[in-house]
Amino acid sequence: MAGGGFWIVFEGGDGVGKSTQIDLLAAWLSSADAGARTVLTTREPGGTDLGVELRQAVMHGDHVEPHAEALLYAADRGHHIASVVRPALERGDVVVQDRYIDSSVIYQGLARGLGDMVERVSLWATEGALPDLTVVLDMEPHADRLARDLDRVERETVAHANLIRQGFLDRAALAPQRYAVIDAARPIADVAADVRASVLAALERVGGTTAFDPESPGVEPWGTP
Amino acid sequence: MAGGGFWIVFEGGDGVGKSTQIDLLAAWLSSADAGARTVLTTREPGGTDLGVELRQAVMHGDHVEPHAEALLYAADRGHHIASVVRPALERGDVVVQDRYIDSSVIYQGLARGLGDMVERVSLWATEGALPDLTVVLDMEPHADRLARDLDRVERETVAHANLIRQGFLDRAALAPQRYAVIDAARPIADVAADVRASVLAALERVGGTTAFDPESPGVEPWGTP
Repeated sequence: MAGGGFWIVFEGGDGVGKSTQIDLLAAWLSSADAGARTVLTTREPGGTDLGVELRQAVMHGDHVEPHAEALLYAADRGHHIASVVRPALERGDVVVQDRYIDSSVIYQGLARGLGDMVERVSLWATEGALPDLTVVLDMEPHADRLARDLDRVERETVAHANLIRQGFLDRAALAPQRYAVIDAARPIADVAADVRASVLAALERVGGTTAFDPESPGVEPWGTP
Repeated sequence: MAGGGFWIVFEGGDGVGKSTQIDLLAAWLSSADAGARTVLTTREPGGTDLGVELRQAVMHGDHVEPHAEALLYAADRGHHIASVVRPALERGDVVVQDRYIDSSVIYQGLARGLGDMVERVSLWATEGALPDLTVVLDMEPHADRLARDLDRVERETVAHANLIRQGFLDRAALAPQRYAVIDAARPIADVAADVRASVLAALERVGGTTAFDPESPGVEPWGTP
């Protein structure tokens, strides 16, 4: 990385093990094995004081209309990138982040039907900031239960989870060079090994340069896609 | 108005007398002379509990990056329209509002250079809600002082105020049927008389129907322009 930062985002549905894998990856990146890098783990929403306040405002105040809520998350995101992620990458740290634009696109744009503006607003808020690598932890929802056991509400829950799952897979397919889709329905250590391998491959791909290096060959992490 | 609501927004630079004219108009609309209408006066930002919280978060917390701040205002706007303005209009009230999308377009899109997305985000947040009438109170900034008396900072302040003023005039010129530009550099009572006349003309124009009446002839107040 030659003093430059590197930015990894974890995406995927609820319950696929993002927190566990983020902790394991951060521990490995900080270890001597991986060059004892300085690692910042962060999350959206909630990675800043403003984000915590916004989250409380949404959860404890009046009912917030869906477009307004989506804009609050985008505002939090712009603030989080400007005040936390960008400075860390400029210091040369590795940032490992729980959820980013894809989550908004899929949960709000796709599942709640708010459409394309969700992505455009986030890209505007962040001035087009895109991670070096997005790790999608993929798992079949409720694979342990047979469909015939489910009542109507459970079937809708599974259908929603499948929509979310497919949404992440479709996002990854749009830009495979910036994504790693990893089967998360396996033992934690096996998933972690694949995560490490995908990070090493991405580090090699960016050639030791950073998300902020305009000379970075073959990647345009800060460009609007 | 035949039971339908009517929505008036006041715009203009700082110090042109919006608050005074809003109070006078609201008092007149509530009076027997004007049919004793139910009037709601409101403002952006700050017309909802969420808006008050957001304003505090922006003013007392971390420095908030400009795009993020613009999105917070747009979120507040979407919430304000959905939870305050739209219900009042559906009840048949008259809503008299201090500032709306034009203020964001001019102060943030134009003067701060954030561009067209400011308007698009607000229209998205409000699902294209536009007032029946926007009253622009127009006044030459610092007309009481001669330019040669000003130091550099004062000249920049006047230049900024002129940019804002011209911004509102340009917005009004784009849709003259929905705007009334009123010379505010006159005695309060004279300005108030012109405001009342513009409101009566607009009421006549919409033919007693409301911003929520899809049959309303010749106006499309909720359409994206």
